[in-house]
Amino acid sequence: RTDSDRLWGSLMEMAKLGATPKGGVNRQALTDLDRHGRDLFIQWCRAEGCTIRIDNIGNIFARREGSDPTAKTVMAGSHLDSQPTGGKYDGCFGVLSGLEVIRTLNQHKITTQAPIEVVAWTNEEGCRFPPCMMGSGVFSGVLEFDAMMARSDAEGVTVSDALDAIHYRGNDEVSPSEIKTYFEPHIEQGPILEDTDTTIGVVIGGLGQKWFDLTLTGLEAHAGPTPMHLRRDAMMGAAEVTQALNRIANAHQPHGRGTVGCMTLHPGSRNVIPGQVKMTLDMRHWEPEALIAMGQSVATAVEEICQRHGLEYELTPTADFAPEHFNKMCVDTVRQAAEQLQLSHMDIISGAGHDAMFIGRVAPAAMIFIPCKDGISHNEIESAKPEHVHAGCNVLLHAMLDAAGI
Amino acid sequence: RTDSDRLWGSLMEMAKLGATPKGGVNRQALTDLDRHGRDLFIQWCRAEGCTIRIDNIGNIFARREGSDPTAKTVMAGSHLDSQPTGGKYDGCFGVLSGLEVIRTLNQHKITTQAPIEVVAWTNEEGCRFPPCMMGSGVFSGVLEFDAMMARSDAEGVTVSDALDAIHYRGNDEVSPSEIKTYFEPHIEQGPILEDTDTTIGVVIGGLGQKWFDLTLTGLEAHAGPTPMHLRRDAMMGAAEVTQALNRIANAHQPHGRGTVGCMTLHPGSRNVIPGQVKMTLDMRHWEPEALIAMGQSVATAVEEICQRHGLEYELTPTADFAPEHFNKMCVDTVRQAAEQLQLSHMDIISGAGHDAMFIGRVAPAAMIFIPCKDGISHNEIESAKPEHVHAGCNVLLHAMLDAAGI
Ligand SMILES: NC(=O)NCCC(=O)O
Ligand SMILES: NC(=O)NCCC(=O)O
Repeated sequence: RTDSDRLWGSLMEMAKLGATPKGGVNRQALTDLDRHGRDLFIQWCRAEGCTIRIDNIGNIFARREGSDPTAKTVMAGSHLDSQPTGGKYDGCFGVLSGLEVIRTLNQHKITTQAPIEVVAWTNEEGCRFPPCMMGSGVFSGVLEFDAMMARSDAEGVTVSDALDAIHYRGNDEVSPSEIKTYFEPHIEQGPILEDTDTTIGVVIGGLGQKWFDLTLTGLEAHAGPTPMHLRRDAMMGAAEVTQALNRIANAHQPHGRGTVGCMTLHPGSRNVIPGQVKMTLDMRHWEPEALIAMGQSVATAVEEICQRHGLEYELTPTADFAPEHFNKMCVDTVRQAAEQLQLSHMDIISGAGHDAMFIGRVAPAAMIFIPCKDGISHNEIESAKPEHVHAGCNVLLHAMLDAAGI
Repeated sequence: RTDSDRLWGSLMEMAKLGATPKGGVNRQALTDLDRHGRDLFIQWCRAEGCTIRIDNIGNIFARREGSDPTAKTVMAGSHLDSQPTGGKYDGCFGVLSGLEVIRTLNQHKITTQAPIEVVAWTNEEGCRFPPCMMGSGVFSGVLEFDAMMARSDAEGVTVSDALDAIHYRGNDEVSPSEIKTYFEPHIEQGPILEDTDTTIGVVIGGLGQKWFDLTLTGLEAHAGPTPMHLRRDAMMGAAEVTQALNRIANAHQPHGRGTVGCMTLHPGSRNVIPGQVKMTLDMRHWEPEALIAMGQSVATAVEEICQRHGLEYELTPTADFAPEHFNKMCVDTVRQAAEQLQLSHMDIISGAGHDAMFIGRVAPAAMIFIPCKDGISHNEIESAKPEHVHAGCNVLLHAMLDAAGI
């Protein structure tokens, strides 16, 4: 059994870095606070005798050797970066559960056959630099390294510059072929486990995603003398696109999702018809054909809306990931671990993207979900119960021991 | 006749202060650039022998004495502040036409019976600090001085602090009762004069305005795992309010206007359902009852939309001005001046708010419009022809001489 107080203590310690007034965390990818979080994680891993590797996109691998020098690694991990108004558990729960497994093995002087490795992936959230799961995407070859280095945030800072600024561009070569199995514990970020009073979600896969940046360009003009029928109001276009996206997502239930998270109006003056609006679109679905159909419907809607309002537009994909089905054997390992521990469990599909979804393309992978309060995450009020955190970490311990052998 | 090159030269000189790359001007109220504009105007007026008065909200009055010491003032003016992406003519044309009248009278050594006064009103645009026409509003008693001093910009700077920072809080007491007549030349900012190939718009009045700040509060949550039907998406509310405002304005044609100029999403992350949206609403109409009805319809729509999406809201009025009908005699003076000068002219209603609309409540007032290119203003591409600028200034000269007597 893992030590629930030790894990909880580390979670609370990490949450101090970027703590927000409302009890959340703002520790966005490749910021100075992200650096502090990484430093702390490495310090904790070194204290457990781990060797550290850092790859070219800043993914951190902390390794505890096994008894069999030819064995592949049993890996666990997640991410340390957060949303601008994120919570304490999203990401950190997975990384620090992996560390807690190592601490428990050390404490009980258990040597596994296969090495155990804990990983913190770079920029999982994707809010500062799209797309999400950037570090695991580059690691697994789904995302192209050079293209990701050139991605920039709203201020124009590139991933490449930000990585250098925090001194986390490594040169260790870590290959997906080293991985035997990858497990990722995470809070559910949705309401299902809580609603059904279930402790463990056995994640069978995750929704595919399509993200777009959309720029609508009309003509900025005076809000008073410009007659309604002569306007080319970019905000009218943006309002209709928002509704179209919502309608399309609703037409693809139960798995469809559609969200406009960012919108900027130019010039942004009360008595000026906006000449330009920049906005983001986030679409998700479990069935590949449905996700493609949603993307096409949105593109058609944008075209029609812009024509009607006399707007020009640019619709740029920033993320495009197919739905992921996890490896059956890995999923079974998680289910069995929950059963061994006599924890209530259910199979579940992840609505959020996770690093495991990219690792799953190049190695056997699965995830362990625990409930979070009201299903809320990406919010400072995100909360999880100590007993659930403890249960999830124990499932990880059992699954890793099962995969690594003693 | 006024000197068209001299007026044009001063307009271009003033436009250098806050000049934007696309040929426009960003010289927002009570900024350091506004101070430079004010300093330049005062310097030019002093060079013409004018005495300067500055009142408690920073309105600048430049006076040329008349021969009758008991006579009231014939005043002309407008504003020197601009939109964030404004043009060279909006406001400056009126102020510098007034100055050009004084220069012309000086050049020809003409003494009027009544004194002539040119005024630059503080914060006409209202984009940094709502409402618009703040300086003339306080001067005419329509807006309350203390309340206006406490208004703040998006960064939380108050009018009071900004006024002190640029050293333009005066202590001259200038009273509306000093005014015999007030004339304000301005670009039309709409398409009518250009469309009908008319040089002079004889402005009979202006649309009333209702401005609101609207905050919609829902629940920020993850864009992936949060099912559509469980969302409290503030952006969905904002999109529907935008469309409702548009629909309501369209239902009140030909005079109804509805514009959403500003919108800010919190937290503003691509994969987060916005928990809060702050937006501005701008509504206008020529008939008082219609404007009131529009305001009520919008309030009802906001209530209904928020209920449907599970949102809370705060709808705060930031401006509320009835439509203004200018003094018939003053309007006739403008029309006669245009006729004397054999300029094509037509009666017109202003869609924009103007200082003259507040001054008109406490003294006889009227306005002189000239065409602007494509009816576009509040845009860096705003443009006016030298011959129209010259014609408008000449109408002002004739109207002022008519009102002041020689
Ligand atoms: N788990 C998580 O919050 N991932 C962020 C990427 C996403 O938007 O799904
Ligand atoms: N004339 C002008 O642009 N005034 C600004 C106030 C308004 O929005 O009408």
